[in-house]
Amino acid sequence: MGLFTGALPLVPAPAGGFGGQQDKGPNVVALGGGHGLSASLSALRLLTSELTAIVTVADDGGSSGRLREEYGVLPPGDLRMALSALCDDTDWGRTWRDVMQHRFQPGKGPGGSLDEHAMGNLLIVTLWELLGDAVGGLKWAGALLGARGQVLPMSTVPLTIEGEVRATGPDGSSVLQTVRGQAKCAVAGSLEHVRLLPEDAPACVEALSAIELADWVILGPGSWYTSVLPHLLLPEMREALCSTPAKRCLTMNLATDTKETMGMSAADHLHALRRYAPGFGVDVVLADPASVPDRLEFERAAGMIGAEVVLGKVGASGRRPVHDPLRLATAYQDIFGNS
Amino acid sequence: MGLFTGALPLVPAPAGGFGGQQDKGPNVVALGGGHGLSASLSALRLLTSELTAIVTVADDGGSSGRLREEYGVLPPGDLRMALSALCDDTDWGRTWRDVMQHRFQPGKGPGGSLDEHAMGNLLIVTLWELLGDAVGGLKWAGALLGARGQVLPMSTVPLTIEGEVRATGPDGSSVLQTVRGQAKCAVAGSLEHVRLLPEDAPACVEALSAIELADWVILGPGSWYTSVLPHLLLPEMREALCSTPAKRCLTMNLATDTKETMGMSAADHLHALRRYAPGFGVDVVLADPASVPDRLEFERAAGMIGAEVVLGKVGASGRRPVHDPLRLATAYQDIFGNS
Repeated sequence: MGLFTGALPLVPAPAGGFGGQQDKGPNVVALGGGHGLSASLSALRLLTSELTAIVTVADDGGSSGRLREEYGVLPPGDLRMALSALCDDTDWGRTWRDVMQHRFQPGKGPGGSLDEHAMGNLLIVTLWELLGDAVGGLKWAGALLGARGQVLPMSTVPLTIEGEVRATGPDGSSVLQTVRGQAKCAVAGSLEHVRLLPEDAPACVEALSAIELADWVILGPGSWYTSVLPHLLLPEMREALCSTPAKRCLTMNLATDTKETMGMSAADHLHALRRYAPGFGVDVVLADPASVPDRLEFERAAGMIGAEVVLGKVGASGRRPVHDPLRLATAYQDIFGNS
Repeated sequence: MGLFTGALPLVPAPAGGFGGQQDKGPNVVALGGGHGLSASLSALRLLTSELTAIVTVADDGGSSGRLREEYGVLPPGDLRMALSALCDDTDWGRTWRDVMQHRFQPGKGPGGSLDEHAMGNLLIVTLWELLGDAVGGLKWAGALLGARGQVLPMSTVPLTIEGEVRATGPDGSSVLQTVRGQAKCAVAGSLEHVRLLPEDAPACVEALSAIELADWVILGPGSWYTSVLPHLLLPEMREALCSTPAKRCLTMNLATDTKETMGMSAADHLHALRRYAPGFGVDVVLADPASVPDRLEFERAAGMIGAEVVLGKVGASGRRPVHDPLRLATAYQDIFGNS
């Protein structure tokens, strides 16, 4: 599953090397969705030209959700963000990235119909409608951006995330209430029994093959229940992730106590992973020391999935909990180098 | 005003020659709007690589009209069609042309907000919003398509067409009623006193300069009052069209008796031109013999604007009155060759 194969015309040739290296770097597959995956790709593109992003397709909110509902397509938003993170570092690549990322503001007239649609979402849906091929359409969008890697959906059918939260019943007892859809799950707090529908959804075959051929598979960072775990909930993907000869790295979030993971420590994140995908072993868990106040507990949890803990400052300076691409790249470089 | 200057990265280099010629062909400027201009460009691209399209910007209907109203931009539709007609003749050019020309169908959900917007209109508006520059945005859209020539708006401000039709007043007398906007003017029938607002709108400077440097200026085919005459109603454009040392060719429509030009013969079209732009002389008038039943009357009208009549079968076979690109190109080749 090489990158830049089945070459489309005018795809800018990948630069000879990245980050001072002359060779093309290890074959890396990064899994996730949304901003977490963007951060991961922004770092990994500095280390390798053999990069595949595999993206969740369960989003049902915002521009993506409306397009999914109206046109019956995959939610394009997270795919667009991943492509944008891989754009060629030239005027050409940056201009088309800005076009893809552009959002239509509320118009002045009575219509305002384009409000908040991201231009790239509309472009990707157009390619899908013309080509009738999810992977093919993303290749063309990647070619437009001169993308330094390929972007694939985890499945070629739109998925739905469902989970349960504890609520108080009419008689005062604790009952489980079903929460349906990624947008609602992301803010539900303390989700249980998280699952993907349809249960037998096929994984994208190109994604399975990329995992099989990878040197490294990187899972996370990202919203734990809606961007990270879904990759392990789809049976074919879980199987591929468990059986690949690739090394596996799990990258922890900087903020652990989010709306989705209320009250969960970093170690609890690992326990959740083990509970949902018991057979999934990890080689390295990468975390920022600031997000792991209890190191012993965290190391014990990591040990239970077979992982060595690598701590490194990978968060950006400033108050927002976002990964710094250069620091993250440096950490990955060390991890890959020691394998 | 050479083409392919101020080169954007990755613009496909223009082919060495067109239609078997080794040189790049004459410098041609084609003026019009809508389907007529597309036909003209589809023919002219076979003869020259030095091609500039100048497009009317008074449309206020459909997708273009809604975008114009909501975002205060030029109506993008006719510009998009001109760009699409010039797309590079490769998989790359044709795919992005198909993307640009794609129209969103009514969605299945409750929104349906994208109904009938053309994808290319949204792309052009996005480029305009990002770059704040109408001509610059069209250059990027042209670069995406590998366009064989440049596309310019006649003005960088949106224009409004206004005219008058005769109606019967309350007392039974004949009164003049104002019709405002291209969409309404196009179906009003027998327009009088056609004018452009704002009256002092500036012409696009790149368009003026292209007209000044052209070997040939081609006006028409196209809707007479809404795509052809507007170029002569904008003062700066009329002046440039009158004073250019270029040869001028006027290409007649195949259907003369349309909703817009009810009851008008081909000769009447020339009389209207002379009435609205008295100083505008024409070297050649090209017409299909089928659209000129009264040749003597037509030749007399052509003589009054200084033009020689060239008759040639330029209509496509079949019932619809559309120009055939190859026949039109052959006619232009003869006309250019004899100059």
